[in-house]
Amino acid sequence: MSRIEEKESSMQACRDEARMLQALELARRGVGLTSPNPPVGAVIYKDDRLIGSGYHHKAGEPHAERMALADAVAKGHGEELCGAVIYVTLEPCSSYGRTPPCTQGIIDAGIGRVVYGVVDPDERHRGGADALLRAAGVEVQGRVAEAACRAFLRPWLHAVRTGQPWVVAKVAATMDGRIVRAGGRHQISGGEAREYMHRLRYRSDAILVGGRTVRTDNPRLTIRCGVESMEGKEQPWRIVFTQNAEGLPRDAAIFTDEHAGRTVLYEKVNDFQGVLNELHEKYGIVTLMLECGGRLLREWLERDLVQEWVQIISPYIGGGDVLLLPGGDLKAERELVDMHAQQFGNDFIISGLLHPES
Amino acid sequence: MSRIEEKESSMQACRDEARMLQALELARRGVGLTSPNPPVGAVIYKDDRLIGSGYHHKAGEPHAERMALADAVAKGHGEELCGAVIYVTLEPCSSYGRTPPCTQGIIDAGIGRVVYGVVDPDERHRGGADALLRAAGVEVQGRVAEAACRAFLRPWLHAVRTGQPWVVAKVAATMDGRIVRAGGRHQISGGEAREYMHRLRYRSDAILVGGRTVRTDNPRLTIRCGVESMEGKEQPWRIVFTQNAEGLPRDAAIFTDEHAGRTVLYEKVNDFQGVLNELHEKYGIVTLMLECGGRLLREWLERDLVQEWVQIISPYIGGGDVLLLPGGDLKAERELVDMHAQQFGNDFIISGLLHPES
Repeated sequence: MSRIEEKESSMQACRDEARMLQALELARRGVGLTSPNPPVGAVIYKDDRLIGSGYHHKAGEPHAERMALADAVAKGHGEELCGAVIYVTLEPCSSYGRTPPCTQGIIDAGIGRVVYGVVDPDERHRGGADALLRAAGVEVQGRVAEAACRAFLRPWLHAVRTGQPWVVAKVAATMDGRIVRAGGRHQISGGEAREYMHRLRYRSDAILVGGRTVRTDNPRLTIRCGVESMEGKEQPWRIVFTQNAEGLPRDAAIFTDEHAGRTVLYEKVNDFQGVLNELHEKYGIVTLMLECGGRLLREWLERDLVQEWVQIISPYIGGGDVLLLPGGDLKAERELVDMHAQQFGNDFIISGLLHPES
Repeated sequence: MSRIEEKESSMQACRDEARMLQALELARRGVGLTSPNPPVGAVIYKDDRLIGSGYHHKAGEPHAERMALADAVAKGHGEELCGAVIYVTLEPCSSYGRTPPCTQGIIDAGIGRVVYGVVDPDERHRGGADALLRAAGVEVQGRVAEAACRAFLRPWLHAVRTGQPWVVAKVAATMDGRIVRAGGRHQISGGEAREYMHRLRYRSDAILVGGRTVRTDNPRLTIRCGVESMEGKEQPWRIVFTQNAEGLPRDAAIFTDEHAGRTVLYEKVNDFQGVLNELHEKYGIVTLMLECGGRLLREWLERDLVQEWVQIISPYIGGGDVLLLPGGDLKAERELVDMHAQQFGNDFIISGLLHPES
């Protein structure tokens, strides 16, 4: 390779990555809406000019590639698609699902080059796009900005790999690790942190609590603030683990509100993995957030079934008997990695992953 | 005031504040070294040119104003001091202490204008500088960048006001509020957080632990890393609160190392305030850091004698029996204000004030 060719090649790599991150920003708009599908974004460039963009809005609706192609056509760039480059955060699908394969749509539109982020882990697609596209004379390059795209797709990649939802443990505690403030106040977090918690619910397909939480707090477990719009978003499933279904109050909000049909009870569960399998297969749940008390949280940790940890830390020191995680040593200590902290009003939110995603 | 005069006046206010913050940066170099005196910084400007700067290094040595004046002379700017402006973070002293009053030094040097940050709360000085300087024909302006200077001087201002040290509670805990990791490991924090902890010790004049900590951890409580130099810094006093002085191990590090003379035992203390008075009066301690376990920490909190809270949060979740703050509700819940968080490696350090300083 000559020096000029080398330089052109490294400039193209840089351009490709920037455009993939642009597609990733679009993908973020679909978070919380697309399960059991992944949130995916796509942009189309012709001669360094953006001519179309789109993202996957909802399972059953067109994929990001189709949205971007249609966007280009709608904007009068249909003829420019021939020889254009499409950037998509996930390998285009190559088999018939609810919609025809995107590879065919790309070929039909005359796209000259396909750049994607993450190889589809789904056996029906994995690597399939490359062969199909190349056979049709389309240039293909995968694994561009792969780390960022993988990190973004963690919950879905986990669900495809394991057949179970990605489990996020959400806890709110004082500086000294209590979940009830001195004097018995259950409201720990300030307004800004609570809004963030509702945005976490928006990202989730389901929220899990224990029967004890239903009895003592009567939570609604719905998204009520913190998000711009609920358009395209259903309220999360409410999953209750209880030792005694009969003993739950019949008039609890989750049994009586307008979303009562989205409340699912499990009694005396011992096979947590079996429930996770069912939640993914039957309800299409990709992200499950635990909002349970410390005793049930312990059970999830002991079974090593938590992937992500989000802790709201509020500025109180008060002692007390209700610990964020009661009891003696866990059988195996968990360690968080890839940690982040952010301030919301007077609260801090610290989050991390319990297992580095492979 | 004409519009031109108004503009000139607001430009001068802006310049004054910027130079005061410059003096404050110098003052920071003295933190941990000057007790029972405050850390103070000063800069001298003539015709918008910096001609001298200095800070207070150690009790008994010259004050910041004297250091800055001497610096100007040493740099050949002695003649320019006439009509120059000195910026100093604290009101210049106006009475004889271990050194002659700075007001006299300023007058003798022919300084034309004195700008200072915080009014000296010490009754012997408070506001005294203004009258003395003005009588000598020197222009005076106080309370410039006052909030920043006051925040910086919080420990010393507290000590002058109360006659007792500023008390910092330092705790290191896991995400779930345990101070011992699962499996009994007492080492919780990573290397970068530990270095920060040694810098906290450097800022302190004394460290307090309970007899239990001496028996179980045998800590040295010295500054051993994280700081560039120990020049001018003595190792902190080690204060031990014990129920049974005879029961402490005679061979503990704090009784046998080269700083053994700086270990002070208090047995069966009930009058914490009495001890604080003594620590300030007898040993000149302005900042006292608690590194005790949860039971003794509780006693300090219940007595409302903690001013600042520094908590290292490490990325482990393990349950366990040793809580950062054991026991039921405190008689009165404490709330932190003015909070900050910083990441050190995989640890976070969250700090705040238990009482807003008036």
